[in-house]
Amino acid sequence: MEHQTETNHDSERLASDIEHIHKLASHLLPHYAQIQDDNTLAEPHANANLQMLIGILHELHPADVATVLESLPPKERVLVWKLAIPEEDGDVLLEVSDAVRESLIEAMNKEELVAAVEDMDTDDLAELADALPENVVHEVLKDLDEEERAQVQAVMSYEDNQVGAVMDFEIVSIRADVTCEVVLRYLRRFESLPDHTDKIFVVDDNDILQGVLPIRRLLVADMDELVENVMSTDVVKFRPEEDVEEAAAAFERYDLVTAPVVDENRKLIARLTVDEMMDVIREETEADMLNMAGLKDEEDLFAPVWDSVKNRWMWLAVNLMTAFVASRVIGAFSDSISQIVALAALMPIVAGIGGNSGNQTITMIVRAMANAQISTQQAMRLLKKEIGVALVNGLIWGSVMGLVSFWLYKNIGIGLVMVAAMTLNLLLAAVLGVMIPVTMEKLGKDPALGSSVLITAVTDSGGFLIFLSLATMFLL
Amino acid sequence: MEHQTETNHDSERLASDIEHIHKLASHLLPHYAQIQDDNTLAEPHANANLQMLIGILHELHPADVATVLESLPPKERVLVWKLAIPEEDGDVLLEVSDAVRESLIEAMNKEELVAAVEDMDTDDLAELADALPENVVHEVLKDLDEEERAQVQAVMSYEDNQVGAVMDFEIVSIRADVTCEVVLRYLRRFESLPDHTDKIFVVDDNDILQGVLPIRRLLVADMDELVENVMSTDVVKFRPEEDVEEAAAAFERYDLVTAPVVDENRKLIARLTVDEMMDVIREETEADMLNMAGLKDEEDLFAPVWDSVKNRWMWLAVNLMTAFVASRVIGAFSDSISQIVALAALMPIVAGIGGNSGNQTITMIVRAMANAQISTQQAMRLLKKEIGVALVNGLIWGSVMGLVSFWLYKNIGIGLVMVAAMTLNLLLAAVLGVMIPVTMEKLGKDPALGSSVLITAVTDSGGFLIFLSLATMFLL
Repeated sequence: MEHQTETNHDSERLASDIEHIHKLASHLLPHYAQIQDDNTLAEPHANANLQMLIGILHELHPADVATVLESLPPKERVLVWKLAIPEEDGDVLLEVSDAVRESLIEAMNKEELVAAVEDMDTDDLAELADALPENVVHEVLKDLDEEERAQVQAVMSYEDNQVGAVMDFEIVSIRADVTCEVVLRYLRRFESLPDHTDKIFVVDDNDILQGVLPIRRLLVADMDELVENVMSTDVVKFRPEEDVEEAAAAFERYDLVTAPVVDENRKLIARLTVDEMMDVIREETEADMLNMAGLKDEEDLFAPVWDSVKNRWMWLAVNLMTAFVASRVIGAFSDSISQIVALAALMPIVAGIGGNSGNQTITMIVRAMANAQISTQQAMRLLKKEIGVALVNGLIWGSVMGLVSFWLYKNIGIGLVMVAAMTLNLLLAAVLGVMIPVTMEKLGKDPALGSSVLITAVTDSGGFLIFLSLATMFLL
Repeated sequence: MEHQTETNHDSERLASDIEHIHKLASHLLPHYAQIQDDNTLAEPHANANLQMLIGILHELHPADVATVLESLPPKERVLVWKLAIPEEDGDVLLEVSDAVRESLIEAMNKEELVAAVEDMDTDDLAELADALPENVVHEVLKDLDEEERAQVQAVMSYEDNQVGAVMDFEIVSIRADVTCEVVLRYLRRFESLPDHTDKIFVVDDNDILQGVLPIRRLLVADMDELVENVMSTDVVKFRPEEDVEEAAAAFERYDLVTAPVVDENRKLIARLTVDEMMDVIREETEADMLNMAGLKDEEDLFAPVWDSVKNRWMWLAVNLMTAFVASRVIGAFSDSISQIVALAALMPIVAGIGGNSGNQTITMIVRAMANAQISTQQAMRLLKKEIGVALVNGLIWGSVMGLVSFWLYKNIGIGLVMVAAMTLNLLLAAVLGVMIPVTMEKLGKDPALGSSVLITAVTDSGGFLIFLSLATMFLL
């Protein structure tokens, strides 16, 4: 299904539209059951609101409708969804987040779903297929021709993080031995060219990719020139099993708009477009951010409480276990604490600065890894630098807190133990802040995953252990 | 300066090239001073390495050279930079991060810098101008014509977060009253069309924007048709003072490749391209992530220790102050702790789970705000939901830890205080996890800024206060 690429843009207008929709939707909620099949209400005032809501919705781009739906609580969301233009339902479903998509599909019956998706491009259909009820997918696949069905199945056969899952089949290809004039005449036979077409793919008789002919080069070329003399043979191309984040990085690096996807024999099978790659980049960095904080998935903001609990319980459980360990570390020093109660008050400072500094280090390393700036071989060098930073910070801030502690408790020993413990815990934070993501990467895991929870665990238990051991050794 | 948009892409090859460059650079470092003006070395083995390094560098795309430079420690970086193709120096400078750019510019003399930037497009020159020595900028501006100088100054007059700072002036425009054939003939007069040209801008005699003519529509249009009948008048357009993050979001939503920038009278002044917008999206989400962790800026991974200390000190200082407050809270209860030492061991569990859960909430809200999914009006509703989640988690995990504490200390009172304190601290985390970003937004501040540090501060002090107060009230 093709999007209209031109639309009035006015971010303030969109924001005020959203606010307006929110108000209308909550006014209309009590009347929801009375809305008739022709989208009218008997009660005049409510009907005026209803017609206004429908009017606004019909002026919005499907992507904006998606934003509106994501921002609405469940009941209002269903109300607005029922009033949106049915012809655009498919486009909206493609734009919303997975969690919201689920709630929208639940609100539709089989006929509505089939109508929404049956005219979709095969790649879009494949994207939605997992979320759709089986009988809907079956019904829609039945009406496709063999080639289209094969395309849907091809896209569905790849993992979400592979190029194959986001490729599309709207490719325009030509032979190398024709003139530019022939190409222009050939293009004119299309009713419309696919979205984002910035280059024509040049293939031989067996569909093997020979090069690409950028449109902007075609437009200025001599009409009698052969394609093979104008085309570029130095092509950035992708394989369907490649990592989609790497493809997105290549789009960014080489400023691409579209790129061919080829199989192991260089046979052209599909293409990638920059709009999908932009989504990949945003999702990738967002996922890193959520993962660091210990959130499993992007959450529907208005998900039922129980869904949110499930999305978050795992890292909370990990956190509780690590907190329990920290608690046992303190428990082991209860004699020392009962002799010097000040230790109980000072120990969270040592743990806290370690956690804060460790989070700074680990965030930086995780980002650099995502941008492929560091290999594990360089870990040693980074480690040295982070240790340097920790040492400087430890001596500066340790001395500050050492003086404060001395002033509070009039005990020079406590002050000195603070300086030493803070410096050591910052060193621990630096070492683990580098080692945790590097190890995760070596084990083939996502370095962002729960990294913030893990580093805090280490600096808490480690901070208590260091501080209380030093205190026990030197102050008792 | 125009990038070559086609290049061999092979992410594994790039990774192995980078590794190879690292090895060669560290081998060559001792010979750095002996490298002669013609880039050769007297010693044959070292010279072989040098020529190999130059060979690899000359095959890399400027964007890949930038990645290589970012991944190298300072001395090796300068060595490799000196060996890169001088003609591509300008492109590389545009691609590297701000921090690394500074280190590269420092390694160049005035003549090299002028040579690198004098042929740049005006928008690129404006991007670099702030980082260049004043005499270089002066020298280069002198050689520009008046229009170009005005363009550089226009771009430089906007803030980094405004559309004007990333716009470029490579616009192709036509009148509405000519035929498509005339347009095609006009385009053929260009030596080459600007990068990313996917549409021609349609203007009147006063350069007022009338619409856009997408190339893919031009290519299939009837040659005798007038532009005004083919063009689209429903145009997504931007103003130079608009927020660049909103422009990037619009590019994403409406799947744009280029878009016109107009002044208050709709006069066409420049354009935006999708490659710049991709960079904005990545930088925006990355900046949020770094800010949450309390890092001021993106750091050069191999920055001198002292630069890193400066980049991180502020949030560490904030953290120390909040930790000091938490410490004083505990200090106020030293009597209670000296009577029941178990309290000292259990209190970090209460604080820890609050911090973890608060970070989950605040991360989700900050993301949703960046994606414009929530207005402050909805804060109340989100608050209710987060409170629900906190209540469920508090009762479940509070009970688990209550039982564990009871089992550890054989004291039912301690168990019950744990349940109550954990539930209350989770509620506090939920309330502040929503309120902190909402308040930041209301105050016109970035909601991501140090949010993780702030929420942890609240849940630490709050957790200690809640737990120790309850214990003092019910256990003593």
